[in-house]
Amino acid sequence: MALLVQKYGGTSVGSIERIEAVADKVISYKQQGHDMVIVVSAMSGETNRLTTLAHEIDPSVRGRELDVLLTTGEQVTIALLSMALQKRGYAAKSYTGGQVKILTDNAHNKARIVSIDAMNIDRDLKQGKIIVVAGFQGVDENGNITTLGRGGSDTTGVALAAALNADECQIFTDVDGVYTTDPRVVAEARKLDRITFEEMLEMASLGSKVLQIRAVEFAGKYDVPLRVLSSFEEGEGTLITSDINEDDTVEQAVISGIAFNRDEAQLTINGVPDTPGVAYQILGPVSDANIEVDMILQNVGADGTTDFTFTVNRNDYDTALEIVQKKASSLGAREASGNNKIVKLSIVGVGMRSHAGIASKMFEILSKEGINILMISTSEIKISVVVEEKYLELGVRALHDGFDLAEDDSE
Amino acid sequence: MALLVQKYGGTSVGSIERIEAVADKVISYKQQGHDMVIVVSAMSGETNRLTTLAHEIDPSVRGRELDVLLTTGEQVTIALLSMALQKRGYAAKSYTGGQVKILTDNAHNKARIVSIDAMNIDRDLKQGKIIVVAGFQGVDENGNITTLGRGGSDTTGVALAAALNADECQIFTDVDGVYTTDPRVVAEARKLDRITFEEMLEMASLGSKVLQIRAVEFAGKYDVPLRVLSSFEEGEGTLITSDINEDDTVEQAVISGIAFNRDEAQLTINGVPDTPGVAYQILGPVSDANIEVDMILQNVGADGTTDFTFTVNRNDYDTALEIVQKKASSLGAREASGNNKIVKLSIVGVGMRSHAGIASKMFEILSKEGINILMISTSEIKISVVVEEKYLELGVRALHDGFDLAEDDSE
Repeated sequence: MALLVQKYGGTSVGSIERIEAVADKVISYKQQGHDMVIVVSAMSGETNRLTTLAHEIDPSVRGRELDVLLTTGEQVTIALLSMALQKRGYAAKSYTGGQVKILTDNAHNKARIVSIDAMNIDRDLKQGKIIVVAGFQGVDENGNITTLGRGGSDTTGVALAAALNADECQIFTDVDGVYTTDPRVVAEARKLDRITFEEMLEMASLGSKVLQIRAVEFAGKYDVPLRVLSSFEEGEGTLITSDINEDDTVEQAVISGIAFNRDEAQLTINGVPDTPGVAYQILGPVSDANIEVDMILQNVGADGTTDFTFTVNRNDYDTALEIVQKKASSLGAREASGNNKIVKLSIVGVGMRSHAGIASKMFEILSKEGINILMISTSEIKISVVVEEKYLELGVRALHDGFDLAEDDSE
Repeated sequence: MALLVQKYGGTSVGSIERIEAVADKVISYKQQGHDMVIVVSAMSGETNRLTTLAHEIDPSVRGRELDVLLTTGEQVTIALLSMALQKRGYAAKSYTGGQVKILTDNAHNKARIVSIDAMNIDRDLKQGKIIVVAGFQGVDENGNITTLGRGGSDTTGVALAAALNADECQIFTDVDGVYTTDPRVVAEARKLDRITFEEMLEMASLGSKVLQIRAVEFAGKYDVPLRVLSSFEEGEGTLITSDINEDDTVEQAVISGIAFNRDEAQLTINGVPDTPGVAYQILGPVSDANIEVDMILQNVGADGTTDFTFTVNRNDYDTALEIVQKKASSLGAREASGNNKIVKLSIVGVGMRSHAGIASKMFEILSKEGINILMISTSEIKISVVVEEKYLELGVRALHDGFDLAEDDSE
């Protein structure tokens, strides 16, 4: 017997038929004796339908009334799922974010959860009720309806699991777990049974869009075991947890997965006179233009100058290039250039902390395939390289193979 | 400068285009210096769409979760109308029933308003904001979402007007006012400028479905001037008020209108032994079958027996006939019979209180047309007759003409 918080996304509740399937699945857990709290998104398509209505009135609408509008999507789902559970003879009760109450700050459209009152849900659970909570929404301290932004239902699930001290937060989605890399690129990609929060964060932020980053951060912060699994297929999914070896005796694999990101573009200023504050002078105007910067590298060049390189989202490439070209001339730099035909490949794994030689092995694998590395960046549990776009598939497959990720016994 | 509560029904907000038209209309009042509180229904079709979803899960669903589902309809409208007002440069703020808060009892699907907290709306009005409130909904004392039942948005409007001490509650609908009778039956039917709450109640309960009866009762109880007017055409509509002659010097018309009801059926038991409690013995089983009884007549018959007649909704005719036939034999009555080809015609007017001879004039008019009267029932401001169904149009036209309702100078 455990207390489980399960979250079902828009596709999983996209029709009455699917809502009824979710009801059956929830009941199968309830019948095993678990206490069940279910977090749901709006039925797929509903948020877009509502957004389209709003945009007919004001294409740039933001703020309070947009939240009042969009939160109806989840409210419809909680009512329908509760009805389906009741129809099957189970006591069920729906909660809007405000009814819980999930207190947020007042940053409409992108609010952050401040606290969750678990009292009412606790009481209803004790009475044997299945609880159905609207994801993605809360209220501020004045009772204004807020939303956590797109994908915020994952965060609702994790935050509720933390507040209720649940045994596990299970995110049901349209994939059956977290893979060593994208199976569309590497057919031999293997589903991971376990992964750490840190690794998941690196995987997610690098483009493996299985879970919302904020939800993973939240789960890590409050140490809520998080499981990703399929709404449509049976299986144990992938457990995301703080200690991957918790009940495992075999040694941890060094590398958990290969992530990649196609959305990058690179900007370089060569021969910048190396004076204090030069990084700020270059990145200040970029930041002022609301452009997010990913990797940043600065090398010592010859003759007292420096070479400065950073990457941005490819959508921001043209604007960023214009900015650095202006800046290069005002700084007296030799030249500014850019490249929007690049990708970032990363190997991720907590095991690399204690293993020397991982980086050189990565470079060796790429070199054997004749792939030239344009940039390198490292963190505690990740090594990223920027390479030409045309090498994406070749590089990912070579790394996946070179680090033995496909082998069944590597686990 | 006045404080106006305006209510717009589902047809009036049935599309983005119409919501924008409502925004323009509201602003035209605001520009005249009025404080504006707007109550809206769900966009037409939305409540049916949601009900259909629920019925796919459970065709007989009732209760708490149905209210959670249906209230999203009005929540969508308040958000969209607020956006449309803001887009036009006006400060606007939406309120769900719970946010107001409109406190109701906990009778889900047909809750009654217990109290309204006007404090927050008052504060926002003082700041010049246009307030947009979701009709039809409230919360009980435990924060559960409730609905007032279909058509309850009118009641929300009136209750808000009472709580805010508004100068007028204006109900915008798809007709331009209250008529002396149904214009589809009598082409010369005339729009009334004024009518009393009592008259409106009699007209409404007799089938002139312009306003919800509960809303009129509520307005009468709290003396909230109520105006019915068209969303789509210009005009003053009809003012429903406690004193029809408030600022009128001409004498009140004796009869305000002719109402009729096609949905009646008549049941009769003849020759019932006239003992105490006979009425209860007949109507008890009818009431137990959840059949509502409208008119009830009991005449003294010959030889110490009595004749007992009552009317019910035509849908309940078969069940009611079966009940009275059983009852007739157990009571030792002579016979039980019924007629479901009848209609009720009524003349309504506060003026008849002080005018003798109205009843005889009514009977004379019908008699001249050769219309046989089957039943008669009178109240302070109403005289109703039951006649054969085939005389409906003839009877209504004759009464409308006989009481000079079409003449312009009768007002």
